[in-house]
Amino acid sequence: MTYVRNAWYVAGWAQELKADTPFAITILGERIVIWRTASGAIHALEDRCVHRLAPLSLGRCEGERLRCMYHGLLFDPDGRVVEMPGQDRIPPQARVRHYPVIARHSWLWVWMGDPARADESLIPPAVGLDHPDYILGHGQLDYAAEARLINDNLLDFSHLTFVHANSFGAGPQFAETPARITPLDRGIRYERWTENSIGTASRRSPEPMDSFMTYDFLIPGVLLMTGGVFPLGTARECDFGTPDYDRAVSGVTFTSQAVTPMAGKTARYFFSWGPHRSHGDAALRDMLMGIAGQAFDEDKVMIEAQQQVIDMTPDPQVMPTVHDRGVTLFNRLVEKLAREERTEMLAAAE
Amino acid sequence: MTYVRNAWYVAGWAQELKADTPFAITILGERIVIWRTASGAIHALEDRCVHRLAPLSLGRCEGERLRCMYHGLLFDPDGRVVEMPGQDRIPPQARVRHYPVIARHSWLWVWMGDPARADESLIPPAVGLDHPDYILGHGQLDYAAEARLINDNLLDFSHLTFVHANSFGAGPQFAETPARITPLDRGIRYERWTENSIGTASRRSPEPMDSFMTYDFLIPGVLLMTGGVFPLGTARECDFGTPDYDRAVSGVTFTSQAVTPMAGKTARYFFSWGPHRSHGDAALRDMLMGIAGQAFDEDKVMIEAQQQVIDMTPDPQVMPTVHDRGVTLFNRLVEKLAREERTEMLAAAE
Amino acid sequence: MTYVRNAWYVAGWAQELKADTPFAITILGERIVIWRTASGAIHALEDRCVHRLAPLSLGRCEGERLRCMYHGLLFDPDGRVVEMPGQDRIPPQARVRHYPVIARHSWLWVWMGDPARADESLIPPAVGLDHPDYILGHGQLDYAAEARLINDNLLDFSHLTFVHANSFGAGPQFAETPARITPLDRGIRYERWTENSIGTASRRSPEPMDSFMTYDFLIPGVLLMTGGVFPLGTARECDFGTPDYDRAVSGVTFTSQAVTPMAGKTARYFFSWGPHRSHGDAALRDMLMGIAGQAFDEDKVMIEAQQQVIDMTPDPQVMPTVHDRGVTLFNRLVEKLAREERTEMLAAAE
Repeated sequence: MTYVRNAWYVAGWAQELKADTPFAITILGERIVIWRTASGAIHALEDRCVHRLAPLSLGRCEGERLRCMYHGLLFDPDGRVVEMPGQDRIPPQARVRHYPVIARHSWLWVWMGDPARADESLIPPAVGLDHPDYILGHGQLDYAAEARLINDNLLDFSHLTFVHANSFGAGPQFAETPARITPLDRGIRYERWTENSIGTASRRSPEPMDSFMTYDFLIPGVLLMTGGVFPLGTARECDFGTPDYDRAVSGVTFTSQAVTPMAGKTARYFFSWGPHRSHGDAALRDMLMGIAGQAFDEDKVMIEAQQQVIDMTPDPQVMPTVHDRGVTLFNRLVEKLAREERTEMLAAAE
Repeated sequence: MTYVRNAWYVAGWAQELKADTPFAITILGERIVIWRTASGAIHALEDRCVHRLAPLSLGRCEGERLRCMYHGLLFDPDGRVVEMPGQDRIPPQARVRHYPVIARHSWLWVWMGDPARADESLIPPAVGLDHPDYILGHGQLDYAAEARLINDNLLDFSHLTFVHANSFGAGPQFAETPARITPLDRGIRYERWTENSIGTASRRSPEPMDSFMTYDFLIPGVLLMTGGVFPLGTARECDFGTPDYDRAVSGVTFTSQAVTPMAGKTARYFFSWGPHRSHGDAALRDMLMGIAGQAFDEDKVMIEAQQQVIDMTPDPQVMPTVHDRGVTLFNRLVEKLAREERTEMLAAAE
Repeated sequence: MTYVRNAWYVAGWAQELKADTPFAITILGERIVIWRTASGAIHALEDRCVHRLAPLSLGRCEGERLRCMYHGLLFDPDGRVVEMPGQDRIPPQARVRHYPVIARHSWLWVWMGDPARADESLIPPAVGLDHPDYILGHGQLDYAAEARLINDNLLDFSHLTFVHANSFGAGPQFAETPARITPLDRGIRYERWTENSIGTASRRSPEPMDSFMTYDFLIPGVLLMTGGVFPLGTARECDFGTPDYDRAVSGVTFTSQAVTPMAGKTARYFFSWGPHRSHGDAALRDMLMGIAGQAFDEDKVMIEAQQQVIDMTPDPQVMPTVHDRGVTLFNRLVEKLAREERTEMLAAAE
């Protein structure tokens, strides 16, 4: 399946990267070693020694450098070999690929495309665990399924009515009516008002209210969602557009989620969720994380089973429904960006 | 390997199919969902939603219908989609394959070929668990081996002398002399008289008797076996043909066995066995099932090892022996029927 | 990867081969059954019955013969079928491949090439567990990696400084200076003097000494290593050549190690190690085996990870260093011998 390369992929949680402890992850089938030095700098290299292809992630941090612990070659953070034990001359081709890497919003972001085009402004505006406005829990799940199937899941919330009837207690509205979908430069925006409702498991209110939820789903596969519960009539007052969050009576939360394609048909799914400080506390955060744990397991069962069916299908074809507008828009965007990347690469090679 | 499609394959035990609880099985590499409705009807569909290929076996029964629990598409038992949530128009191509399915003789039989040719009279006459004449135990085993290797095993009983020397206590006669093999329209018949013998573990007699065993092995892979112990001289009296079972002094039992090719090189083996009411009771049934459990494990060890050897052999060739007459006749029949099916399919496509 | 066929491969420990108990091993992708008869003779055949490819290793020893326990074919130690139950005529092509096999130096050696060229003098002079001069422990490890990667490891001891810094406590000398490497007819010789050193974990001395280690690494993948600790000045006195072991003050040990390519990318690694009787006892042997256990686990972690990286690399290329002289010489020898074998085979086929 197609993925965009000129994009920032989430490689892990920034706070879990201990100094001088190399961390290995495979993204888009490429093994990458990431390490944080005592100086606080973070580096990412191809996880493969030039000598005999041992993984550098089994290596030892030495200052800003990383030493392969098979036969001792020493690598600069830019990928160049600067020491080959017992040998004076180092061949100029002795270097591995270097990846731009940035810690932001509690995530480690790796740029998988042309390093010269790495653009920090393209990092999606996730909400980090240390954000002053939110009280967030977090977690991650490994999938035996392609990242794109998880993206598709997150781009069509009509599945809430069926997959998450138990966990979120989602009602029929997600499947009965399409949400408002708006194309963005690097993704799509999803918006849904549910009028006159007592809400779902995560934001139940004693009397009917208007409930709003919205998320941006951004290249390469990052979901940023918020919403809240508003007085009856708010939906119509703002013409089903974005409400003034200061008028929310409860239920304002934020969730950041990222899907990272790893090797073959596997992916890692990162997520955080929790209430705004004005709408909840650590106890509510823990309740939300409990619901999320159940819901994300429900997704995983369905999506991994879907992957198995696809793998047993000679020529798998999908049949989009009215709810697939977000899926279709996003996947077309991926295809378009990937095509442009290939064209540029061919042009550069001429 | 080649298998016949226009045939009834055993998909499971009828009594284990609970109402409104979809059951998934893969036959000939095709995922199938089977369910029993509150009305008692049994349905079988391709286990793959038209929308995004989620398995319908994770779905929910609603009356006679089955709802995919990913995004809520609702399927009629004939495979047509009758509801796509949030969408008025349903594309006519929104349908999955329907499989004829019948519960009979305690088994669920699925017709894997052209539904228009599904012919109930081709269901092999197995003996169900509720048959008034027999007291039967039952079980099943999953094999990491092709169904055809299990068929081959069941078609050449010379292996009893070696593989089952411990369990059945089979003597040398199975290997020393060929059985009488007769071709049938949809299989082969095996008949063997053992004269003047005290029998095997499952039918030991205190003094020598004539012992008879016979089975039909039928398309696609169903073994139906009976036999008994008769007074000395009976074999010659009936010219080594079929005896009058009313003259049996003991040991009349019946076993039904079915081999179902699942995905790739895996198969499921179903079996029942037990004495005729005139020749035993529940205690004898339990003793026989104990012997069968040991014997079928012996087969599984050998056949799965054989599969491993075959998989490591570049161009595997067999060298048939005198005992392979049943194997050869049956496999030629399979090849012939499969060839005819392909010819008909090509003719129909013109 | 390329391996030499006209060579003796270690198949197992001779003392572990119980009489009349067939033992299965796969070497170079070929399944082999080895058995010891009551007479003490050892035989090795292709582990695959001619009839339906069941493994003979599930068979029964009968005198010098081995009976397939699927349908009872009986095999002579030379591979010929001498009995097919129930059948008078035995086809002349009913035979499996016979492998020359010898128990020596506590190992079972199998000749994988042309049996007519099996030459006992090519068995590497390992030190068996019953050797009167040494007190040896032994063990084995299964690798999820190609044998050749393990050979490469054993041919470049510069890895000791990095991989085994903890276990052997190896200093920088292994990586800082190249060892003396000498080509042999069937391998290479490694020699290293470390002057004025207190040694490594396995031979620590209270005051600085000259330490010597040397090994031959022989086709197909056998390492035979010895060495010892000598008075200061010995290295220079013998011009960094082979010392007189009678002058060793301590630390004389011997280790025999063998790497056997099994199926696909797996290998089995056999090893023994222990002190000369004049330089240690069972307690020292146990201490050495403890160190070896740790060190060989360190190797396994690195080499299996290396294999994984290689498997994920589209066109894996190595970049040899100054320490790769032994690796390069040995692998070129393997390529040359394998090429000659193919040429001879083609000539013989004309």
